[in-house]
Amino acid sequence: MPLLGLLPRRAWAALLSQLVRPPCASRTGAVRCQSQGEESLQVAEAVLTSQLKAHQEKPNFIIKIPKGTRDLSPQHMVVREKILDLVISCFKRHGAKGMDTPAFELKEILTEKYGEDSGLMYDLKDQGGELLSLRYDLTVPFARYLAMNKVKKMKRYHVGKVWRRESPTIVQGRYREFCQCDFDIAGQFDPMIPDAECLKIMCEILSGLQLGDFLIKVNDRRIVDGMFAACGVPESKFRAICSSIDKLDKMAWKDVRHEMVAKKGLAPEVADRIGDYVQCHGGVSLVEQMFQDPRLSQNKQALEGLGDLKLLFEYLTLFGIAEKISFDLSLARGLDYYTGVIYEAVLLQTPTQAGEEPLNVGSVAAGGRYDGLVGMFDPKGHKVPCVGLSIGVERIFYIVEQRMKTKGEKVRTTETQVFVATPQKNFLQERLKLITELWDAGIKAEMLYKNNPKLLTQLHYCESTGIPLVVIIGEQELKEGVIKIRSVASREEVAIKRENLVAEIQKRLSES
Amino acid sequence: MPLLGLLPRRAWAALLSQLVRPPCASRTGAVRCQSQGEESLQVAEAVLTSQLKAHQEKPNFIIKIPKGTRDLSPQHMVVREKILDLVISCFKRHGAKGMDTPAFELKEILTEKYGEDSGLMYDLKDQGGELLSLRYDLTVPFARYLAMNKVKKMKRYHVGKVWRRESPTIVQGRYREFCQCDFDIAGQFDPMIPDAECLKIMCEILSGLQLGDFLIKVNDRRIVDGMFAACGVPESKFRAICSSIDKLDKMAWKDVRHEMVAKKGLAPEVADRIGDYVQCHGGVSLVEQMFQDPRLSQNKQALEGLGDLKLLFEYLTLFGIAEKISFDLSLARGLDYYTGVIYEAVLLQTPTQAGEEPLNVGSVAAGGRYDGLVGMFDPKGHKVPCVGLSIGVERIFYIVEQRMKTKGEKVRTTETQVFVATPQKNFLQERLKLITELWDAGIKAEMLYKNNPKLLTQLHYCESTGIPLVVIIGEQELKEGVIKIRSVASREEVAIKRENLVAEIQKRLSES
Repeated sequence: MPLLGLLPRRAWAALLSQLVRPPCASRTGAVRCQSQGEESLQVAEAVLTSQLKAHQEKPNFIIKIPKGTRDLSPQHMVVREKILDLVISCFKRHGAKGMDTPAFELKEILTEKYGEDSGLMYDLKDQGGELLSLRYDLTVPFARYLAMNKVKKMKRYHVGKVWRRESPTIVQGRYREFCQCDFDIAGQFDPMIPDAECLKIMCEILSGLQLGDFLIKVNDRRIVDGMFAACGVPESKFRAICSSIDKLDKMAWKDVRHEMVAKKGLAPEVADRIGDYVQCHGGVSLVEQMFQDPRLSQNKQALEGLGDLKLLFEYLTLFGIAEKISFDLSLARGLDYYTGVIYEAVLLQTPTQAGEEPLNVGSVAAGGRYDGLVGMFDPKGHKVPCVGLSIGVERIFYIVEQRMKTKGEKVRTTETQVFVATPQKNFLQERLKLITELWDAGIKAEMLYKNNPKLLTQLHYCESTGIPLVVIIGEQELKEGVIKIRSVASREEVAIKRENLVAEIQKRLSES
Repeated sequence: MPLLGLLPRRAWAALLSQLVRPPCASRTGAVRCQSQGEESLQVAEAVLTSQLKAHQEKPNFIIKIPKGTRDLSPQHMVVREKILDLVISCFKRHGAKGMDTPAFELKEILTEKYGEDSGLMYDLKDQGGELLSLRYDLTVPFARYLAMNKVKKMKRYHVGKVWRRESPTIVQGRYREFCQCDFDIAGQFDPMIPDAECLKIMCEILSGLQLGDFLIKVNDRRIVDGMFAACGVPESKFRAICSSIDKLDKMAWKDVRHEMVAKKGLAPEVADRIGDYVQCHGGVSLVEQMFQDPRLSQNKQALEGLGDLKLLFEYLTLFGIAEKISFDLSLARGLDYYTGVIYEAVLLQTPTQAGEEPLNVGSVAAGGRYDGLVGMFDPKGHKVPCVGLSIGVERIFYIVEQRMKTKGEKVRTTETQVFVATPQKNFLQERLKLITELWDAGIKAEMLYKNNPKLLTQLHYCESTGIPLVVIIGEQELKEGVIKIRSVASREEVAIKRENLVAEIQKRLSES
């Protein structure tokens, strides 16, 4: 699988400095990039609209796609298909069923589930009916599905688009429409067995994609909350402070501290106590150490979380992945609904010099336990414990695409196996009969939609699109009852009997 | 492929009488069906909301999904995956590239493209930015893509969701969110070669799915317009009358005539002249006959259309599908953007008595030529001729699901090959080690998430979910360094050396 080979160090540097560019817009012959500033764009639009109004049958507006979205070209799609195949295979290997939910939900289903990010939801216009919003993730619709259908146990995966109105100027390179790949286990089971499997799945996928070295940070919401309580955070501020801590992978501690103290009204000494904890990370020995921590060991919740983490590490060792996992007290996860273990996988840059800290290049998978979410949708409040993960496929698509660009790798965007060509004029009918034979035999075949194409044009088409075989029919072949097969790579040609054509092609394709 | 076998006559009858039921909503323990009437539902909601408000941590609203949408269960997904695989394979066999566009477009991109149906678009709420609408089909986004990226030639397929606010009370059984599978050929080519390939693709897919006998109705917008002109329809009414004619597959002629005369102000004698034409259908001989028609033969547009249809039939004969095609003057297609040949595939019910007309059970695929659409998006009005088709996969999913229900066929919703079991207590660690070996070898494996599950529970799980093999580890096996492999179907067990386990399982799976 050379496509998904190791990313050279240079490519990583390029990747870090270069973020995805905003989508392009075209108008009046010239293609220009859409301005980041909403206002300047609107002014430009107004001017152009009036300029164009005079003409008939031409668009009187700029042809572009919505802000923060993009088209996926055939090149994109090929990369996506390969990556999604690998991810879905892994989910199926672990016994998951597929499912899908509508792109939008009743707005009230989605509200108060996402903490500070709730404002980023796309609402649909009230067109006289229900108030709807586009789904923000795949987890809340899954919980709604379980509650609505009274499903108490289910292992499912879900691949689909979600939508978030993030401001492209704040979070560069993030799209407002993107694909998520989720795997979740719902049901009452013995502790930490499904949780450990989720981490195993993340390891299998990240290893399989050959994205380079990675690390999975693990923590537990009960440890986070216990730490907050032990440090003196008022309970009413738990979720808000949690959101701040969640930004530690993007912001320095001093900025996060400032946000907690200045914006969220936390006492400076409380913030400093938190600061002592969030720099701790390590393996199972850190779990043992925290059991002895004078503050945490007084907190019942924290002790429960630590106990579960200890058990989790035992299972991770049996799965052979313990060395990939780091207990990290700075991991908080922004979403409101987590109740137990939480985790986040990050890719590590190869250190440029020995002894250097590995550089975090961002989260590519994350998840955790959410035991209360289904109960929020159940009329009697019945809970269904859940644990799951989401693969950040968009970032992975981007990494693989950048790597291919760096390597100058080309992808075929079609799978055509055979091209039907002729060197002579007036052979359209024969070409149509011939290609019908191939299609009807399940062979992927193309021809040019021209009555009399030049042979050179036909052969050039095969070379530029990567079609490996050409079958050629002309007067001579027709008279002799043969067809010429040409290998595009070697340019070798051989004549075979017409009736053996399909068998011969299938033989050649199975050999290649 | 027994799944896609022939549908028995009884199933057809059930299918015809029984249309897809509206989605269900659940609340307060009882599951009830969502009312069709919007008002009565809102009243009920208000009452229930106030009843539920008293309780904490329970939803104070009805848990349901948006009107006209539904969740796709694992059972649905398995059927979909099989059908979509077949459809996409066919598209790839004909050299198509994949692509995707955002779920929503700028509203102005979509307006005035869909004729009378434009009001059915889902608009997004204006949240301070652009005015957006959910895509209504995949054709307009494709045309926008071609124009925006100045692509002059492309053969692509696109599988994705589209959204239409159809009233479920008017058009029963139609969902507001549904999947489309489109194939289109853009570019300037010699006449009717790509058009004929589109019809060939429709035939391949409908034959491959084994849905029973089908027929593809063909007409040409220029013949439709020529017929209107020849009958005396004022040009300003062409598109409106076209929309009426399009309803002939669902409404009787007298009702369509009434709509044209009473609602759209057409003179009765003009309507009657149209009535004479729209009952004509047949093969290539009808094309010849229409060349001689005193009215049509005076119309330049109609003659162009007839000339192209004649050529089309020539190519269809070479493709071996001419007998599946019917030139049908009642076919009009509702969408505004068609400019040339149009077509629609319908499934035919086996006649219950000899000599009876085959009964139309609805369109399952359709398409046509739209040479002007891309130009509407190009700043200079440059045209890119296009022809394409859309497979009505939702109707096909429904037919196949109904057929399976009638036959009592069960589908496996997981692909798990091996289950890891133990007859003893305290064997969780050994099971975890064993399943890791299987997963790491790429084998699809499951186990129960219990410390000490009963053997009977474990074996029952395999039987109920269709897992073919069980590997069993217990004290005896551990001591002897063996693993038992059990065939769930035959209940035969055999002990093999632990180190041969993966190889033995792979051998058994490849044989089955």
